[in-house]
Amino acid sequence: MLKIALGQMEVIPGRPDLNTQKMLTMISAAQSQQADIIIFPEMAIPGYLLGDAWEQQAYLRDCEAFGQKIVAASQDICVIFGNIAPQWNKRGDDGRVRKHNACFIAQHGQLISTRIKTLQPNYREFDDTRHFFSLRKLALELKQDVETLLTPVKILIREKEYSLGCIICEDGWNDDYSVDPIAALSANGPLDLIINISSSPFTLGKNNKRNRVFSRQAQETGVPLLYVNNTGLQNNGKTVYTFDGFSTVYNSTGQIIAYCQPFTETLTYLEIDVATGGQNLAPVSVPDDFTIDSLYQSISYGVKQFLQAIGMTKIVIGVSGGIDSAVAAALYASIVKPNNILLVNMPSKFNSKTTQDLSAQLSRNLGCLYTVMPIEQAVEHTAGQISGTPVTNLATGEQNHLSVSSFVLENIQARDRSSRLLAGISAAFGGGFTCNANKSELTVGYSTLYGDQAGFLAALADLWKHQVYQLANYLNTQVYGRKVIPQAIIDLVPSAELSFEQSVDEGKGDPIMYPYHDFLFRAFMEYWNRVTPEDILVWYSEGTGVLEQKLGCQAGLIAKLFPGPREFIDDLERWWRLYTGMAVAKRIQAPPVLAVSRRAYGFDHREAQNGVYFTQEYQKLKNKLLCH
Amino acid sequence: MLKIALGQMEVIPGRPDLNTQKMLTMISAAQSQQADIIIFPEMAIPGYLLGDAWEQQAYLRDCEAFGQKIVAASQDICVIFGNIAPQWNKRGDDGRVRKHNACFIAQHGQLISTRIKTLQPNYREFDDTRHFFSLRKLALELKQDVETLLTPVKILIREKEYSLGCIICEDGWNDDYSVDPIAALSANGPLDLIINISSSPFTLGKNNKRNRVFSRQAQETGVPLLYVNNTGLQNNGKTVYTFDGFSTVYNSTGQIIAYCQPFTETLTYLEIDVATGGQNLAPVSVPDDFTIDSLYQSISYGVKQFLQAIGMTKIVIGVSGGIDSAVAAALYASIVKPNNILLVNMPSKFNSKTTQDLSAQLSRNLGCLYTVMPIEQAVEHTAGQISGTPVTNLATGEQNHLSVSSFVLENIQARDRSSRLLAGISAAFGGGFTCNANKSELTVGYSTLYGDQAGFLAALADLWKHQVYQLANYLNTQVYGRKVIPQAIIDLVPSAELSFEQSVDEGKGDPIMYPYHDFLFRAFMEYWNRVTPEDILVWYSEGTGVLEQKLGCQAGLIAKLFPGPREFIDDLERWWRLYTGMAVAKRIQAPPVLAVSRRAYGFDHREAQNGVYFTQEYQKLKNKLLCH
Repeated sequence: MLKIALGQMEVIPGRPDLNTQKMLTMISAAQSQQADIIIFPEMAIPGYLLGDAWEQQAYLRDCEAFGQKIVAASQDICVIFGNIAPQWNKRGDDGRVRKHNACFIAQHGQLISTRIKTLQPNYREFDDTRHFFSLRKLALELKQDVETLLTPVKILIREKEYSLGCIICEDGWNDDYSVDPIAALSANGPLDLIINISSSPFTLGKNNKRNRVFSRQAQETGVPLLYVNNTGLQNNGKTVYTFDGFSTVYNSTGQIIAYCQPFTETLTYLEIDVATGGQNLAPVSVPDDFTIDSLYQSISYGVKQFLQAIGMTKIVIGVSGGIDSAVAAALYASIVKPNNILLVNMPSKFNSKTTQDLSAQLSRNLGCLYTVMPIEQAVEHTAGQISGTPVTNLATGEQNHLSVSSFVLENIQARDRSSRLLAGISAAFGGGFTCNANKSELTVGYSTLYGDQAGFLAALADLWKHQVYQLANYLNTQVYGRKVIPQAIIDLVPSAELSFEQSVDEGKGDPIMYPYHDFLFRAFMEYWNRVTPEDILVWYSEGTGVLEQKLGCQAGLIAKLFPGPREFIDDLERWWRLYTGMAVAKRIQAPPVLAVSRRAYGFDHREAQNGVYFTQEYQKLKNKLLCH
Repeated sequence: MLKIALGQMEVIPGRPDLNTQKMLTMISAAQSQQADIIIFPEMAIPGYLLGDAWEQQAYLRDCEAFGQKIVAASQDICVIFGNIAPQWNKRGDDGRVRKHNACFIAQHGQLISTRIKTLQPNYREFDDTRHFFSLRKLALELKQDVETLLTPVKILIREKEYSLGCIICEDGWNDDYSVDPIAALSANGPLDLIINISSSPFTLGKNNKRNRVFSRQAQETGVPLLYVNNTGLQNNGKTVYTFDGFSTVYNSTGQIIAYCQPFTETLTYLEIDVATGGQNLAPVSVPDDFTIDSLYQSISYGVKQFLQAIGMTKIVIGVSGGIDSAVAAALYASIVKPNNILLVNMPSKFNSKTTQDLSAQLSRNLGCLYTVMPIEQAVEHTAGQISGTPVTNLATGEQNHLSVSSFVLENIQARDRSSRLLAGISAAFGGGFTCNANKSELTVGYSTLYGDQAGFLAALADLWKHQVYQLANYLNTQVYGRKVIPQAIIDLVPSAELSFEQSVDEGKGDPIMYPYHDFLFRAFMEYWNRVTPEDILVWYSEGTGVLEQKLGCQAGLIAKLFPGPREFIDDLERWWRLYTGMAVAKRIQAPPVLAVSRRAYGFDHREAQNGVYFTQEYQKLKNKLLCH
């Protein structure tokens, strides 16, 4: 029997002092519980997402020194933890000091062994290869097979030797790599336990997949597998990630025998009979991960942690009477005390009484602070000043006037609300104002830069519009248990109300047809093999049913929306132009996005501000379709 | 004798159609000149900086098809060019189709060979490892030494066989890698020519280093080396890079025998006697790269290309009478016709007559369009609306008022200028407005979000304040040959003029002491091993002279600025807090930065919005210094 403590700690990136303190406290608790082993996550001391702070040697030395404190504390207990391992006398490919992302194994106050991460993710938000020197690279340099370097760590507990296969995060996700660390460890075994220390950001549905993959690994090797992940929030500047922990233990037949509560810092113990591969513990069932519960949990945890991290306690939210700002208000009010939230309605002549009343009703339901500041006067002043002030050509002395079109006026309104009012109000209130943009509008830049795109955090910007509605219903039914978001807001046609052409009372609204475009945009953006207009036309040519199935949207919808190929193609090109054109320029200046999906804007979905392009194959298909 | 054409083309990222067209035109020209070989840059067809567009299979197929057109065009000439090489039946580590960054060698309408990039940069702005499968990885998979895979390409020209060592960009910069591609090729030789096709972004001073490194390689191997680089502009969203071309040929003793004009698309021919290692051609001298000429050339080329790429022809610039906006105005007016540039002065009660008059004088000197739009009325309206509108607590019914402090008022002014006026004016004018921020203020966030930090491009944001002054003088003396920027603007104390405390007439101004802080910030940000307060204190402890020498600032300055360690440390902590704190949040939403230095903000200098941190060693040193 081994008593093992799973140290599912909240890791604070960039704060090795606080992380070490936490670990020492947990070690001490585990010692008092006579645990044999305590396991901490990957990069438990430095944090994982630090940008290029890895280039600061002083920071590396600091983390190394904290690591020595953890080693020294490993009295009567084996401590397994992640930390950065600088190799001061060697260089990485960038010429800087070589750094391994490493797993340290300590006991009796001594370092027993270190193991280096073999597989380093280099997709999505991950930049491991930029910073860390992998075991694969080391093997290449040593001119050895990487497999021979993957050896178990032997530890002695109560005079019995245990053989541990210690791996780090991506090492357990080897499907696409030519190296299989677990198989190699197993071949160099026998193993008693596989230990995967991770720092694995939350992605909706990822835990379901992880349970399948890791369960299979335990089963195939016949060795219990312990997965320990951190909680907390880390970011890459443009994109913010929650870490759900959800540390899980699989027995030798792949059944789950323990797991830690997601999004919760815990020190969880289990007594595992290594001889029977953990069959002494009854299997438990884990919650499904691909649910609206999971989505809400992640977003609300993320917002809470983000506010804490930047020390913000007071929030200003512009509420228009529309769905996005209503969901933002209800979300924040479920996290921050209502009297620290100021909801601001900023009507112009284009805003209906309907939405103004709904804003007030929403605010009453939430019990927040509320104010109404019309923008009419300021907008008129701005338009008047721009068109009324002469512009002089200093070469000729000629004077002219600029004119303010209705389109220019729309954006003046949006910026007036955010950059003039909300920014000023939040500074006076002592807080920040939120960006309520959703992923659908961010995809095609259906928002105004320095206007409704502004804010300190875009908490809903990784949700498609239909997910915003799901969240609205979830907030009403599950979080509040009452209709804090008035049903009329949910039923209203989505509209920016920036002109009389966007009148909600007449059922007019956004040009985005969410039931179709949400799914089209998702294919452009989230599919692993990214979809382009060429792919769309191929599927469309095979039949609208094929396309609907490929996109996952409602059957029969496409024929209903588009009378024929001309309309279909016009629409496709319109949005592709925006997605790869102006929207990129806007996203460059967008606030940080809280990530929940398999692909979030910012550092996950990297992009260049290049021209709009259609492939040769696309042009051929288009011509064929239009020449029928 | 071989007649070789250097195809220093402008590569347009994301436009394989246009790039292929350009290449076909150049091939045709070279054929008519009886050239034996034509060499194009790395990734000549797809472009190099595409963000994650590499994940679009349709784009890969498209580039592959265009590559086949180039191969087919290689009649009576050998064509060497860079393109993406997808391996449709193999996978990369991310599970997507495997892609090599490759060099194609074609002749007689047939593909003779392809060579794969061995070393892939994964620092600064480079994400090669994210997208491309290197020869190193392939060697690991094949369980072969990478050196054995680095073989010369044999081509037959007029019945004589030539042996070419074909490498790609980073392969020639192997100092920090465990593999030396040129040495391996040479060992698998003999070689007649080394050909390095590159897509190498401009960095101030990099060509000087390149000439040293590549000259040494030619000399060491005794083989002439031909370096072909593209021109144009490419970007990673947050950061924009110019490509200077500057293709260069080194003979077998390392002397430069030919080079192409930087920042200029050219097809340049040379007839090289391979038997003598190119000794038939006289050495030429190349211009020094680390100069203000080079800096201006890069920035003005970058701005011109950026405007062309986004199709912008009209520019609005807010001119305050200060140095940054004056340099921006003079820079843009040297690129865009003055009557397409609208300069806007936006005074408040805090702006001196001095700076208002200087703005007008600058505008007259440049002959641009000019207008004055005061912000006083709008700012008063905003402050009045925010403090005058009651805020209701909807839980209690209690009403309160917000108050607008002088600090809040400063930022209201800055946002009023940019988000209210400049954004509206530029929309009405049919163009965009510039961000005139410099690198010193961007480092510590000495600017207002949605205020003076806003704009479509931050063309000066990779220049320290002292470089902005250098550029001002250069514009006056070299570009215009007259004082378009009034000397008084150059002599004026830098100030934001957002309060009476920042009065220029009283010599009051910015809290940043540029002669010292420029160099301190540069050490934080640009040094390869990034400097932290710990390093600064170590050097300071060794003597202010040591620190001045390490930072490269004026001798004797530090003792003059700071009476003792207390003042020195207070200042150090103040700016470190800003650099790693609020300034990160601001940079996340900053406009694209035009890069010229060895480290630019954005995608080059990646960063997380984490807390401010001081290492344990720093704390110890600080205590020691303060307890004297």
